[in-house]
Amino acid sequence: MALHTGRHFLQIPGPTNVPDRVLRAMDYPTMDHRGQEFADLGAEVLAGMQRVFQTEGTVVIYPASGTGAWEAALVNTLSPGDKVLMFETGHFATLWMKMADSLGLDAEFVPGDWRRGVDPALVEEKLRADTAHAVKAVCVVHNETSTGVTSRIGEVRKAIDAAGHPALLLVDTISSLASIDYRHDAWGVDVTVSGSQKGLMLPPGLSFNAVSDKALAASKTAKLTRSYWDWNDMLGPNAKGFFPYTPATNLLYGLREALTMLLEEEGLENVFARHDRHAEASRRAVRAWGLELLCQEPREYSSSLTAVLMPEGHDADALRQVILERFDMSLGAGLTKLAGKVFRIGHLGAFNDLMLAGTLAGVEMGLSAAGVPHKAGGVLAAMDYLSGAEEAAAPKMAAAGD
Amino acid sequence: MALHTGRHFLQIPGPTNVPDRVLRAMDYPTMDHRGQEFADLGAEVLAGMQRVFQTEGTVVIYPASGTGAWEAALVNTLSPGDKVLMFETGHFATLWMKMADSLGLDAEFVPGDWRRGVDPALVEEKLRADTAHAVKAVCVVHNETSTGVTSRIGEVRKAIDAAGHPALLLVDTISSLASIDYRHDAWGVDVTVSGSQKGLMLPPGLSFNAVSDKALAASKTAKLTRSYWDWNDMLGPNAKGFFPYTPATNLLYGLREALTMLLEEEGLENVFARHDRHAEASRRAVRAWGLELLCQEPREYSSSLTAVLMPEGHDADALRQVILERFDMSLGAGLTKLAGKVFRIGHLGAFNDLMLAGTLAGVEMGLSAAGVPHKAGGVLAAMDYLSGAEEAAAPKMAAAGD
Amino acid sequence: MALHTGRHFLQIPGPTNVPDRVLRAMDYPTMDHRGQEFADLGAEVLAGMQRVFQTEGTVVIYPASGTGAWEAALVNTLSPGDKVLMFETGHFATLWMKMADSLGLDAEFVPGDWRRGVDPALVEEKLRADTAHAVKAVCVVHNETSTGVTSRIGEVRKAIDAAGHPALLLVDTISSLASIDYRHDAWGVDVTVSGSQKGLMLPPGLSFNAVSDKALAASKTAKLTRSYWDWNDMLGPNAKGFFPYTPATNLLYGLREALTMLLEEEGLENVFARHDRHAEASRRAVRAWGLELLCQEPREYSSSLTAVLMPEGHDADALRQVILERFDMSLGAGLTKLAGKVFRIGHLGAFNDLMLAGTLAGVEMGLSAAGVPHKAGGVLAAMDYLSGAEEAAAPKMAAAGD
Amino acid sequence: MALHTGRHFLQIPGPTNVPDRVLRAMDYPTMDHRGQEFADLGAEVLAGMQRVFQTEGTVVIYPASGTGAWEAALVNTLSPGDKVLMFETGHFATLWMKMADSLGLDAEFVPGDWRRGVDPALVEEKLRADTAHAVKAVCVVHNETSTGVTSRIGEVRKAIDAAGHPALLLVDTISSLASIDYRHDAWGVDVTVSGSQKGLMLPPGLSFNAVSDKALAASKTAKLTRSYWDWNDMLGPNAKGFFPYTPATNLLYGLREALTMLLEEEGLENVFARHDRHAEASRRAVRAWGLELLCQEPREYSSSLTAVLMPEGHDADALRQVILERFDMSLGAGLTKLAGKVFRIGHLGAFNDLMLAGTLAGVEMGLSAAGVPHKAGGVLAAMDYLSGAEEAAAPKMAAAGD
Repeated sequence: MALHTGRHFLQIPGPTNVPDRVLRAMDYPTMDHRGQEFADLGAEVLAGMQRVFQTEGTVVIYPASGTGAWEAALVNTLSPGDKVLMFETGHFATLWMKMADSLGLDAEFVPGDWRRGVDPALVEEKLRADTAHAVKAVCVVHNETSTGVTSRIGEVRKAIDAAGHPALLLVDTISSLASIDYRHDAWGVDVTVSGSQKGLMLPPGLSFNAVSDKALAASKTAKLTRSYWDWNDMLGPNAKGFFPYTPATNLLYGLREALTMLLEEEGLENVFARHDRHAEASRRAVRAWGLELLCQEPREYSSSLTAVLMPEGHDADALRQVILERFDMSLGAGLTKLAGKVFRIGHLGAFNDLMLAGTLAGVEMGLSAAGVPHKAGGVLAAMDYLSGAEEAAAPKMAAAGD
Repeated sequence: MALHTGRHFLQIPGPTNVPDRVLRAMDYPTMDHRGQEFADLGAEVLAGMQRVFQTEGTVVIYPASGTGAWEAALVNTLSPGDKVLMFETGHFATLWMKMADSLGLDAEFVPGDWRRGVDPALVEEKLRADTAHAVKAVCVVHNETSTGVTSRIGEVRKAIDAAGHPALLLVDTISSLASIDYRHDAWGVDVTVSGSQKGLMLPPGLSFNAVSDKALAASKTAKLTRSYWDWNDMLGPNAKGFFPYTPATNLLYGLREALTMLLEEEGLENVFARHDRHAEASRRAVRAWGLELLCQEPREYSSSLTAVLMPEGHDADALRQVILERFDMSLGAGLTKLAGKVFRIGHLGAFNDLMLAGTLAGVEMGLSAAGVPHKAGGVLAAMDYLSGAEEAAAPKMAAAGD
Repeated sequence: MALHTGRHFLQIPGPTNVPDRVLRAMDYPTMDHRGQEFADLGAEVLAGMQRVFQTEGTVVIYPASGTGAWEAALVNTLSPGDKVLMFETGHFATLWMKMADSLGLDAEFVPGDWRRGVDPALVEEKLRADTAHAVKAVCVVHNETSTGVTSRIGEVRKAIDAAGHPALLLVDTISSLASIDYRHDAWGVDVTVSGSQKGLMLPPGLSFNAVSDKALAASKTAKLTRSYWDWNDMLGPNAKGFFPYTPATNLLYGLREALTMLLEEEGLENVFARHDRHAEASRRAVRAWGLELLCQEPREYSSSLTAVLMPEGHDADALRQVILERFDMSLGAGLTKLAGKVFRIGHLGAFNDLMLAGTLAGVEMGLSAAGVPHKAGGVLAAMDYLSGAEEAAAPKMAAAGD
Repeated sequence: MALHTGRHFLQIPGPTNVPDRVLRAMDYPTMDHRGQEFADLGAEVLAGMQRVFQTEGTVVIYPASGTGAWEAALVNTLSPGDKVLMFETGHFATLWMKMADSLGLDAEFVPGDWRRGVDPALVEEKLRADTAHAVKAVCVVHNETSTGVTSRIGEVRKAIDAAGHPALLLVDTISSLASIDYRHDAWGVDVTVSGSQKGLMLPPGLSFNAVSDKALAASKTAKLTRSYWDWNDMLGPNAKGFFPYTPATNLLYGLREALTMLLEEEGLENVFARHDRHAEASRRAVRAWGLELLCQEPREYSSSLTAVLMPEGHDADALRQVILERFDMSLGAGLTKLAGKVFRIGHLGAFNDLMLAGTLAGVEMGLSAAGVPHKAGGVLAAMDYLSGAEEAAAPKMAAAGD
């Protein structure tokens, strides 16, 4: 086992640093999931998750990883052979497409270069061409965890509407929910997929679907086989705060605490502003180092993570290993076609300015220690930004934000 | 919220009382699930679970409830329309049958009266009659959580063999694993299904499949759609201690601690003996009260829970409510056709003689307080048994047991 | 290390079973004890402790065991050679007398038989005889932890008043505070001594003085050397929620949680009623076993512990060892002159009916296992009492109690 | 309550950041402090503390703050009116002197400027002049927490010996033990005083004396009144792992865990090297900012904290307030005569390079935000040092260090 003196810096883009309060909340004895105390808990977290998704629609909570919630979104709304339109924004979009394929769907995978998000104009063009309405769903990853690029969901919605196409809009927010502004209802999303271990500041083990009425209606006729993921089994028990099978009670304890922190104490608006600010500081550091951001579209910079390209001839994984051994910090690796080419800095979840400064210092010292060509001054650039009077205003309290 | 002075008695037949050590183990910061420290953890718990299942075969761990592991057992081994032979031993067998049905299988559901286990002779008879080998799998619930009846899996295996039938044997051990002796390899089981929240002394949120080579071979040709549950995606990463998607890291921390307690400290053999002893004490209490055990077959008495029939004209749920309010103890309800007719006492997991005495005292006082006709003396009968010199031998330490 | 399957029964008369909520509260990162967040904590626990002592006077909190608070009571109010009147109610009264002696006081130790409390008539007689007012303080142990006898402090006060004597009244409530009704102001006590590890449901490590104005005035002229224990160093910082030296921050976190449970949720009145009820149930068990209570004065039965005499020729420590090994329960030993002759059952702190039933079952089974002559039926007698409709009324909520 | 997003940076010079492992260890149910499990714990922590003090002599553990251990050192070895030689190295030396005074000792307080340690030559001179051997003890603070100056105890010992003087040597290591190399036996110290909440990485609430045979002999004749602090009451029970009064059990659980981390895992030698390295990095930052270190003697730089002088006309407390509000970091204040003039950075206990980088970034950003004149580049200077290949060698494991 590695020797930790002090706290490990877990700066992968999820799982994120779980607050002490959430860990302690999880550390209570499991209760009877058929009793009234549980029902109160269930009702509370379901209602809280609606606020996080910014929806008045249905929220479903699974004892499962985010991957399970991807599957749930597809099997509840689609039938074997259905055509779905998906976009190669990165590794996770690719995995979702492969899942669709495994489940017997006909996925059209629009190629991409992993350096920008979904092009709303292309969505519109594709859907206009689909005059037979063969496409049953458009699937978009809101924030590509593999690339640090955030697609513009509101504009994708408008593109679908402009094309007058009835396809469902399914969106993965696993690494954006509760970090980057996301509006299930206002943006007309039909199914939003998410997980516990990123912006929600929990360990992995819970995942979510937010479901529009249109998607719920689609589930009545969708023919993909399903049982564990079936929304319709959830709705009855959920109405009373219960679940159809044993829920992950202790993670729900943690979720309740995390929701209190996000919704009642900090306020979602401040949460988003904090993530934006830390992301901007991180990008300033990257530029000061003379390194290149993977994301090429400023409108699509992710606020929850930053992916950085290595200089030619230098291996990102060697750098990450040096940083882990010397500075006890975990960074995200480049995945599949980006393997060795990028490293990813997670700056989401339970985080603050000094944790970010320590994180960026770890990267900068690691670049030095690993002999990666760069300019010093990244941390300094971030600090200049973070200590600037206007940006660093104390977070507004939730009450004040309303 | 209910007022708890002192500890709640959680005596439903799962989730069970989670030991402090396991809760504390879960209460550590989440780690990078792609790093070496995690790989060591992953390898350790996978190896430990093999010992718990008494198998040298493959073990798969899902971030999911036990219900998910049911689904995994079916979708990995079967194809649409496949015939499966299932037995109505109680509520959970019924749910599993309904799941098979939902997934597009052709389940033959052999009726039962919920008071005894699967009849091995009937298995043999059914399979002998199936000369075309249409039956692809025999599905049995080892320990029916709704009834407190334990089917004899070794004899079921012999029945299948006697019939010379190639069907797979799938067994649910959700409420027996790590409580009641269970031997995946020795009994020739093909897929064993289990969950974290009972004998393993963890909160809910993990579930398991133990998989024989024959089942693994079947998975190569099985055609039910699957993605999240696919064994074949697990095997590669598992070989190095990793998982194909984000695992429920903190529950795995807890699992490591629970495995240390079960395997290294108490020893499985002692764990089983402890559960047998507490079950016998519970039955003696029930008989002393003049109440009737639901299970009618002494060979099939469950060692992890005891279901008790209410006297005619008395409602079990009213009794449970009195016990909850007056004595802060949760008992299991009668399910569906047993609703109101039985209550279930869980005596599995992290448990000892005085917790059992408190539990039985709660039942006995509850019977009085609720005006349910019974004789006093149940607790005393249990105490007589528990304090008997021969049975109460101090648990052998694991070392001594080897 | 002993093998614990399930929870250890810690039924010594303190330290008591610490509630999960209190342990979790203590498990937060230590904070800056000079910052505002700490000041809020400090002010809150000082105010809460006033309510527990039922005083509007001064409360002092020490990072120390209860023994330290004994010393504090003496050194703050007395001068070398001062005469103090103490009563041999048991082991702890004897220790306090020895401390007085070590500190250079002149302790008159009124002999006792360890089976009854302080006789108020004797207090009056002694003080009337002290016409010179040489006695500067009367020191009484409210609840003798070594014997299970509770002295009548209100009557002692009246006796002092009846004698027209100006002596200070110092009272040890280490094993009664927050378990047995105790009224610092109403009973005119000058210094009350207490500790964290009994009725307050905390681990050991904090101790307390509640101080009357008269005692505070005495401290201005008292000449025993003191530094760590000096009240006067505390008062200034305490007024703002701070302490003169580093406080035991994490225990204070726990204290805040315990105060919430005692004062806001259960309500002190219900706390006292609960302890009375469990003590009565315990005594009924003892009588049913045919064993003898150490306490011979019904008005002075302790509600927080019960000391039981062993039959002639049987060793209490042998019994306790059997109970520890066989049933994983710790009971209190007989101390010094009672060594081997009594065992003590603690039924205070975070406790409930089923924990008591388990406790008494452990004693009864232990008596059998150890071959100690007794009648069965103690647990049953307790259960009869506990399940009686009138006594077992659900605890009134704090709100209702006001 | 302040809004914490992410972890608070607790960079006062103690209490320090308590490792998760230590907090979790403390979060276990309290046990019977008269049972064998406790005795094993007691024996283990007493033996471990000997290793930490680098002594084969006696170690005493108090449930008390460090202030209590100061008192214990004095009252166990000295008699009323005894002359003690003390040195004004800073605030804590002054407090200790005042305590000596309160306890009735005759303290000669050698004046100092709070910017350097005890001058061994002066010790020798003073003792040589004391031909009557009136001085019974020399009291030195090893590491002045108020100034960041570490006195040279080994040289003080030589000075005493050179003077041929029999005075006892009493040393306060509250903010140096387990952070800065300290050798009770090799340096011939008679009583070493320490506390739990700094290098030992525990919450406050435990304190310690390490005692030489000479000091133990002195305690037999010392006449200051004492009871709670009396070493001689400790020795008997301690020999079996017990304590004469209720110990702070849960803090002892934490101590056991901390000792494992310090002694078995990191190794004391590596612990000291780590603190030296972080202190040097901190001083480089201070110099780069163009600010002045309080400590004027490089041989006496503290490795556990760094005190920094504010530029003329700028208030340290205003700066600390800005840093607390804007960056959620607590720094140490200037005390009494340094109030407002210095701030103190704690870099001791559970700590690592990135935590230090974050800490220094917080100071540097705070200086900017508060408008304190300084040069940028402090963090960068620290990073240059920390990432230097030679200094940053991975810590040797304990095994390798032996």
